Amino acid sequence: MKIEDKKKFSEKWFEYLQDQICDCYESIEKKFGGSQKFLATKWSKSKKSEGGGNYRILKAGKVFDKVGVNKSTVSGKFSKKFRTNILGAQKDGNYWASGISVVAHMKNPKIPAMHFNTRFIVTKKSWFGGGIDLTPSFKDKKEEIYFHSKLKELCNNNRKNYNKYKIWCDKYFFLKHRNEKRGIGGIFFDYEKKNWEKDFQFVREIGIGFIELSSHIINNKIKLKYNKRDKERQYLKRGRYIEFNLLYDRGTKFGLNSGGNTEAILMSLPPKAKW
Amino acid sequence: MKIEDKKKFSEKWFEYLQDQICDCYESIEKKFGGSQKFLATKWSKSKKSEGGGNYRILKAGKVFDKVGVNKSTVSGKFSKKFRTNILGAQKDGNYWASGISVVAHMKNPKIPAMHFNTRFIVTKKSWFGGGIDLTPSFKDKKEEIYFHSKLKELCNNNRKNYNKYKIWCDKYFFLKHRNEKRGIGGIFFDYEKKNWEKDFQFVREIGIGFIELSSHIINNKIKLKYNKRDKERQYLKRGRYIEFNLLYDRGTKFGLNSGGNTEAILMSLPPKAKW
Repeated sequence: MKIEDKKKFSEKWFEYLQDQICDCYESIEKKFGGSQKFLATKWSKSKKSEGGGNYRILKAGKVFDKVGVNKSTVSGKFSKKFRTNILGAQKDGNYWASGISVVAHMKNPKIPAMHFNTRFIVTKKSWFGGGIDLTPSFKDKKEEIYFHSKLKELCNNNRKNYNKYKIWCDKYFFLKHRNEKRGIGGIFFDYEKKNWEKDFQFVREIGIGFIELSSHIINNKIKLKYNKRDKERQYLKRGRYIEFNLLYDRGTKFGLNSGGNTEAILMSLPPKAKW
Repeated sequence: MKIEDKKKFSEKWFEYLQDQICDCYESIEKKFGGSQKFLATKWSKSKKSEGGGNYRILKAGKVFDKVGVNKSTVSGKFSKKFRTNILGAQKDGNYWASGISVVAHMKNPKIPAMHFNTRFIVTKKSWFGGGIDLTPSFKDKKEEIYFHSKLKELCNNNRKNYNKYKIWCDKYFFLKHRNEKRGIGGIFFDYEKKNWEKDFQFVREIGIGFIELSSHIINNKIKLKYNKRDKERQYLKRGRYIEFNLLYDRGTKFGLNSGGNTEAILMSLPPKAKW
């Protein structure tokens, strides 16, 4: 397949998936008595020919304190300083990237914060990346086992190396300055470029898999009681989440360095946090 | 004066100043009906010979939501990657640094958040740096004029270039990704190394000046009424403050890259923020 077709296919998929996730989460809100809807904002880079995105945020719901579902497709030329870190961009700095990312901060502190992302990036090389991970404020061994076993299944079904992705995830979502993990991990992968068709299929399957997984976890816990102290604990955990995203996250850096929309990039930050 | 004496003098000054600031702020708390005191924590680098610090935090007061007064004296060798950015450290990476920093997040949202810092750094070169700046959640032209005129006076009395320091401050405390200033600026300076005695005197005078300035601003506004919406506005402004400190602040990066104490470095973060 030609690279232009690969771009089109992947972008359209991310668009489709954004609709499905938003529909599903609005249904969940409704099911548990909420009436909040996603508000969509379209944005373009200052050079319109370099693309833009569409971010959708649902706030102050019965289930979600805040959930953002971002989709963007951008292109351009990286600065000389930034391009040295990007595969295949060292020479001319040219890039094209499309992706979707989801961050859900839950009202009920017993439900973990959820993160999902998949992307297709084109420089002189082209590859998929992405991942799914959870950040609970409370330990729940049963949920942890369920979550990881589902991810393992998804990887195995697509002949992807679950162990490698799991270790990568733990390594990536780590707060060095506190010597602690952000959450309970999950899967993280990058530079998938051996077999476009199979990689793309995997990307699609973890997109659908994330909808199923996240819905299951929410449904399972939404009725759990919590008190003010539990909520406080969640606010502190969110403080750590913010530290990670602003100090280390590559997606945040990529966004801020590629002329992305600040509100869209920082939609990952929770509505309220404490230290 | 020998460099070892310069180190001793400056370190002792920062220690003295920490005591004075904490005493003064505890008095202010008491004056307005509070009983909270600073809690002090001493820490050392993992290599004890490389120093450490003493951070003091007062929380949940009548005047201060949170105020941290840090003093630290550390030495060591910067990593090869980090040292390229440090004056006089390119060759061997060796450094010694002592400094004090203060960040005050106020209970009354009509009072600006306040930041003060002075430091003496020794590599192959040695220099003073520091500054004072305010981050209000509400515009107050009169206060702004008072604040800047006092800083101008302090600079003029010490034959320091106020305009240069003011511009430096505006440039430094700038959120590029939002194209907005962090606050109303103040003064910021670095690499002061022409005349140690005079530079040290300036550093002492802005230390005392900060106590006077901050006390004046607090006394002036502590009785102002505010409501829940005003407090919300402060929480949002604090979100920006966090973005700056984690994305851009050099002191934070220096701390995290020199084996500093995480709690001490991140004492600058407010107790609660929103997005």
